[in-house]
Amino acid sequence: MNNLKFSPLFWPIQYKEGIIYILDETLLPSQEKYIQASDYKQACSAIRDMKTRAVGQVILVMYIFLQALEQNKNVNLEEIAQMINSTRPTLSFKFLTDMVLGFRAKGAPIDKCIYGFLDTLKNKRIEQAKECEQLIEDGDTILTHCNVSGLLPLIAEIAKTNNKKINFIATETRPYLQGSRLTACELMREGIDVTIICDNMVAQVMYEGKVNKVIVGADNLAQNGDIANKIGTYQIAILAKQFKIPFYVLCPPATQAKTGADIKIEIRPDQELLVYQGIELAPKGAKAYYPGFDVTPKELITKHIHLGGL
Amino acid sequence: MNNLKFSPLFWPIQYKEGIIYILDETLLPSQEKYIQASDYKQACSAIRDMKTRAVGQVILVMYIFLQALEQNKNVNLEEIAQMINSTRPTLSFKFLTDMVLGFRAKGAPIDKCIYGFLDTLKNKRIEQAKECEQLIEDGDTILTHCNVSGLLPLIAEIAKTNNKKINFIATETRPYLQGSRLTACELMREGIDVTIICDNMVAQVMYEGKVNKVIVGADNLAQNGDIANKIGTYQIAILAKQFKIPFYVLCPPATQAKTGADIKIEIRPDQELLVYQGIELAPKGAKAYYPGFDVTPKELITKHIHLGGL
Repeated sequence: MNNLKFSPLFWPIQYKEGIIYILDETLLPSQEKYIQASDYKQACSAIRDMKTRAVGQVILVMYIFLQALEQNKNVNLEEIAQMINSTRPTLSFKFLTDMVLGFRAKGAPIDKCIYGFLDTLKNKRIEQAKECEQLIEDGDTILTHCNVSGLLPLIAEIAKTNNKKINFIATETRPYLQGSRLTACELMREGIDVTIICDNMVAQVMYEGKVNKVIVGADNLAQNGDIANKIGTYQIAILAKQFKIPFYVLCPPATQAKTGADIKIEIRPDQELLVYQGIELAPKGAKAYYPGFDVTPKELITKHIHLGGL
Repeated sequence: MNNLKFSPLFWPIQYKEGIIYILDETLLPSQEKYIQASDYKQACSAIRDMKTRAVGQVILVMYIFLQALEQNKNVNLEEIAQMINSTRPTLSFKFLTDMVLGFRAKGAPIDKCIYGFLDTLKNKRIEQAKECEQLIEDGDTILTHCNVSGLLPLIAEIAKTNNKKINFIATETRPYLQGSRLTACELMREGIDVTIICDNMVAQVMYEGKVNKVIVGADNLAQNGDIANKIGTYQIAILAKQFKIPFYVLCPPATQAKTGADIKIEIRPDQELLVYQGIELAPKGAKAYYPGFDVTPKELITKHIHLGGL
């Protein structure tokens, strides 16, 4: 397992010589470009503009604190935490910023703690991929939604070493098309078979018997096992149950939310749905509704694949 | 009811002085342009290229025969029927072409029969809108998918005269976006409230209690009550059942298909899903699967709203 290859999405943020490099996921797959952030305000803008997401946000939060501390040992960490917490509602940034403030409260060297956390995170994610791979059988077709930040190519690679050939169906995941742009892209670059469908074709491919398993990620895991993930996950879970297809979730650590009802669903600007790369998809003046996430109740989840203890 | 206004999509084909005018639905809403067909080969190309759909196809088939007969009384109608039948598999063109050949077999004047059929079709569609309107209550929000060729604005207009205020949620209906481009457009031009959502947001808006009824059209009605309609209809029907929301279908006349299993699902070129107006939505070389339609079994349909006897 020492020679595992990683998708750029597995670890989409780098920190070198005082600069944070953020993979701009909105430009993928046509451009693999990194945004440079010289301070926490620039980095927070990148989160707000959805340049990075999921695990990228977690790593970025850590690097924001590292960078700020390197720039000024006496920086006001609470102020930074507050700005991070207010960027976007769905991911529990508070969970992460509280953790860093906790390092300080314990009197530990914060930078060392952060590096330790990131190392553990990387290793736990590899463990998570291995655990997930054990659920997969040779010949499986796995339907997925949105993007699970490099975990699926890793799972497929581990499956390959275990002589299991698997392939994927990726929903395109409107409106940002993370399925087409990110998931299909990262699977294709590793030579893994993937077929893109529109979000409205899920029941049909399940009905046709084309799907053996569903695997998705989660942006937020509540303490009772409910998850919040990219909008569309919930209806795929309902359909999977209808067609008796196992529905697996690659989870982040649980947050403070007791149940899914405690997770605030982010409502995004409707223009993000009505315009794509400058092309108007609807008549001028049309209105839209864009909940960015939905909650899948634990009853619809066959198995949570947890991210070990962090 | 004499002063009803009609959406251009209610009757999207015109025939004047030997030329068939076909509303190019692929250009809507940015352009309202009519393609001119001087012969049946041009008209069949327009069907193949999806320039018109649903009721537009039915009207077009009739005008194709009218035009051909005006051009040459002794034209080979079987040859024309065969070309029409082979344009696209999902709509039962054979049902329509057999009807016209049947007019001839009876020795009736074919042109008079065709005009009679089209008049009846128009009146029956208005009746159908009236019947549907009776199912709607004041304050209802109706979720719809794809486009029902002018029937929804008509239903809303009738509702208005009956003092019922209703509004709509339209799924955008990837990949051709008939929901955004056609349904939202035709409702907006009549001043009817409509909100566009992505196809993956259906469960969420139902969960939030935003949907009182679902109304969709059908491209094909089998004799047992199963329907085929635009891809995505089936999963909306499953979700409607899950959330106990009535699911109504505005039906065309039944075809020869005994059940939905007899309806051939058209598989369209995957480039139609991977490219939108010249913009590549996925990495180069990506593959996709695009079933154009799906079958909704009669068990999921709360009520069929039939198109009278034609």
